[in-house]
Amino acid sequence: MSYDCTFITDLPLSPDQYSFATEERAEFATDYGTTPADASRPDVVVYPRSTEDVSAVLAAANDREVPVTPYAAGSSTESNAVPVEGGISLSMNRFDSIRDFRPDDMQIDVEPGVVGADLEDRVSEEGLYFPAFPQSAQFSTVGGMIANDASGIRTVKYGEVRDWVLELEVVRADGVVIEVGSKAKKSSAGYNLTDLFVGSEGTLGVITRATLDLAVEPAETLAGRAIFSDLADAADAIAETIRAGIDVATLELMDPLTAEISNSYTGSDLPAKPMVVFELHGRGIDAEYGALSEILDRHEPERIETAFDEERRDTLWQARREIGKALLEYDPARELEVVGDVTVPIGAYAEMVRFVGEISESFDLPIPAFGHAGDGNLHYAILADPDDNAELERVHEASGRIIEETIANGGTCTGEHGIGVGKRKYLRQEVDPGVIETMQSIKSALDPNGILNPGKIFE
Amino acid sequence: MSYDCTFITDLPLSPDQYSFATEERAEFATDYGTTPADASRPDVVVYPRSTEDVSAVLAAANDREVPVTPYAAGSSTESNAVPVEGGISLSMNRFDSIRDFRPDDMQIDVEPGVVGADLEDRVSEEGLYFPAFPQSAQFSTVGGMIANDASGIRTVKYGEVRDWVLELEVVRADGVVIEVGSKAKKSSAGYNLTDLFVGSEGTLGVITRATLDLAVEPAETLAGRAIFSDLADAADAIAETIRAGIDVATLELMDPLTAEISNSYTGSDLPAKPMVVFELHGRGIDAEYGALSEILDRHEPERIETAFDEERRDTLWQARREIGKALLEYDPARELEVVGDVTVPIGAYAEMVRFVGEISESFDLPIPAFGHAGDGNLHYAILADPDDNAELERVHEASGRIIEETIANGGTCTGEHGIGVGKRKYLRQEVDPGVIETMQSIKSALDPNGILNPGKIFE
Repeated sequence: MSYDCTFITDLPLSPDQYSFATEERAEFATDYGTTPADASRPDVVVYPRSTEDVSAVLAAANDREVPVTPYAAGSSTESNAVPVEGGISLSMNRFDSIRDFRPDDMQIDVEPGVVGADLEDRVSEEGLYFPAFPQSAQFSTVGGMIANDASGIRTVKYGEVRDWVLELEVVRADGVVIEVGSKAKKSSAGYNLTDLFVGSEGTLGVITRATLDLAVEPAETLAGRAIFSDLADAADAIAETIRAGIDVATLELMDPLTAEISNSYTGSDLPAKPMVVFELHGRGIDAEYGALSEILDRHEPERIETAFDEERRDTLWQARREIGKALLEYDPARELEVVGDVTVPIGAYAEMVRFVGEISESFDLPIPAFGHAGDGNLHYAILADPDDNAELERVHEASGRIIEETIANGGTCTGEHGIGVGKRKYLRQEVDPGVIETMQSIKSALDPNGILNPGKIFE
Repeated sequence: MSYDCTFITDLPLSPDQYSFATEERAEFATDYGTTPADASRPDVVVYPRSTEDVSAVLAAANDREVPVTPYAAGSSTESNAVPVEGGISLSMNRFDSIRDFRPDDMQIDVEPGVVGADLEDRVSEEGLYFPAFPQSAQFSTVGGMIANDASGIRTVKYGEVRDWVLELEVVRADGVVIEVGSKAKKSSAGYNLTDLFVGSEGTLGVITRATLDLAVEPAETLAGRAIFSDLADAADAIAETIRAGIDVATLELMDPLTAEISNSYTGSDLPAKPMVVFELHGRGIDAEYGALSEILDRHEPERIETAFDEERRDTLWQARREIGKALLEYDPARELEVVGDVTVPIGAYAEMVRFVGEISESFDLPIPAFGHAGDGNLHYAILADPDDNAELERVHEASGRIIEETIANGGTCTGEHGIGVGKRKYLRQEVDPGVIETMQSIKSALDPNGILNPGKIFE
């Protein structure tokens, strides 16, 4: 689809705030994930720098029923920000100031284009940090994290991005600016619109400012890893750790193939063995570690390594952080076709890990598996030759089987990546038609002309 | 207003599931809070026992455009469950089974009428607990807690009720049953409808089942209290404790008047002094307590008492728990007219405590103040002679001034009690008209005939 977007030139924007250049537009028709068949180049790319810019664009687009798809770092995995109906790509990258920082309140007001790493730098000056960062925070933006309700390695203790968003300034489809939520840490004042916009993937409104809650940097940190011979033992140890109420700040699983892939890309020297990586935060963590190691020991690890200093800890986490990039580079003949993000109740976690191994074997596909195990979140990746239709079909069938099993276990097809384009059909499997209908009625109420990121979430 | 509700007798309900008796209906026209001028007796009280019952009632009421107001324990403070337009009171108290308990997943499925204390009994058998309980959990129901997004003394560490609701079965206004959310601990699968129904006070749908997440009982607990001479010192100590990242499980403030009122009702022997009550959870809490006591000491408490055994801890918390009832009984000539529930960013907490004292003085009204200080939540109560219009006016003017100051500090008029009838006008002060409009557009989308708890939240 294509829209006449020349009206953009009549808006109060400077000429460097929009582009009709083919090459520039093409950049916005792709992201980290597999580009979907129905991806379309936007007709124009607009670079807002203020709430007023966003409001002017939306009001004008709404009048003309032209689609608007917000785009930030392009690090999402399900084509969440890739237009499928043309129109306007709203690039948030230049809309990236920190507006206000109130260390005494442990709050910061940021614009959507602020990159995670920059936020981290600023708040660490006051001994604070944002504990819900996803692994992509070195380059992904706050706006994108909010739009997808991202989470990360510390979510097991601290919660998702959603849990750290206090207030949002949002521009509605009609251009009206609203401020939802409260700077108070909790509020029962009317409907929770904040949590509705969080994770709505730009389909209900465009976020132009977020007030984030911050945590105090832990007084002490202990990181370590337990190396197992058997993946099932590692998975069992994780479920038992959670059930015992061990206050882990991180509890990650990595399988041998993931370690190998990471080594080949980052030059890390991870043992190619099933591995549980953990972190503990707080004062007096020796007692907590005592309880944790007792559980790990019970599952017969080959060894447990702790006492990582800050440098070694960084190396450890860097390997984990760069799995995403490593997967892209691993096999020159294959592309990253599926990024799995299933999440199940913790009691079903070990079973899901086993099931992914079974699918890998029966479909004869290498499927590296890793993830935020403490949350019940299991990532897996499947590469495919994009020109081999039979392989593509097999890859998606395998992934579909994993998601089916997830749903049968009461889980979700996406713990933190969102639905975008790639998971639309799985959403329909996961929830009943009345839920989709209810979601769509909210979509229609807030965006009656359907201009906001159309084609996403719903098929 | 009055509606012909005889159609209820045609529904597949047994005769003991509804009542047209005047006395019985009158019970549902009042709750814990001040009964509003526009309270109205329902025309019928219906007692559903199943999702099907609720669905049949709503479908029939929706066809006839008859209001339906869900009612549970009647412990809300803002007339949240008191009909203001007659119609049907839907009493959830007999709809109170625990449907399924999965200790390995740390999850329980409950019907809305389950009382907090009963839930606690059941899950404690497996070493689990629900950490977001409000102080009323001895008699209030899970349905009511969810409908108002309640919270309690442990919210400072563990979060609100919202944070522990994984999945909800909800009957929509049209009678359609939907299941929103996921049994996975986190999900980015479409719009967060769970968080929309939580805190919606029965205006968007009727909750018929909740899957709750549970925490493991802490390995160790340390409770204590610090007694101060000066309320300002107590409030400052609280803000500093939070800013220092002390991992408190509870951090409550109680002023001398609240202690006196509590003593007179519960027979407790609380010192009538400004008091900070705290609890620490976890392993190795001595180190955490060391850091906490250092901060408290800096603010010159008269003394700090710790080493409460379980019995003494219970006594301490019982006094706190029964403040609500104590306030009702305190002054035979006066009724509890205002239950304040303001919440501000933590940096403004001490200032708000000071401001309430100033208002108490300038309006010549005793205003006991207490609350979940670690969250920035400050409760206050104002009694009034219901027949003295001048006093009533003064009381509401005083409360209005406190809320005004709260909003000026970026706070909210209600941290955990909801809007109901009593706080409708303050919601309008707190959020801009676009927010109200957006909330109402969602209300219209989900309840086009406006049958669900009409007259609440919005004026």
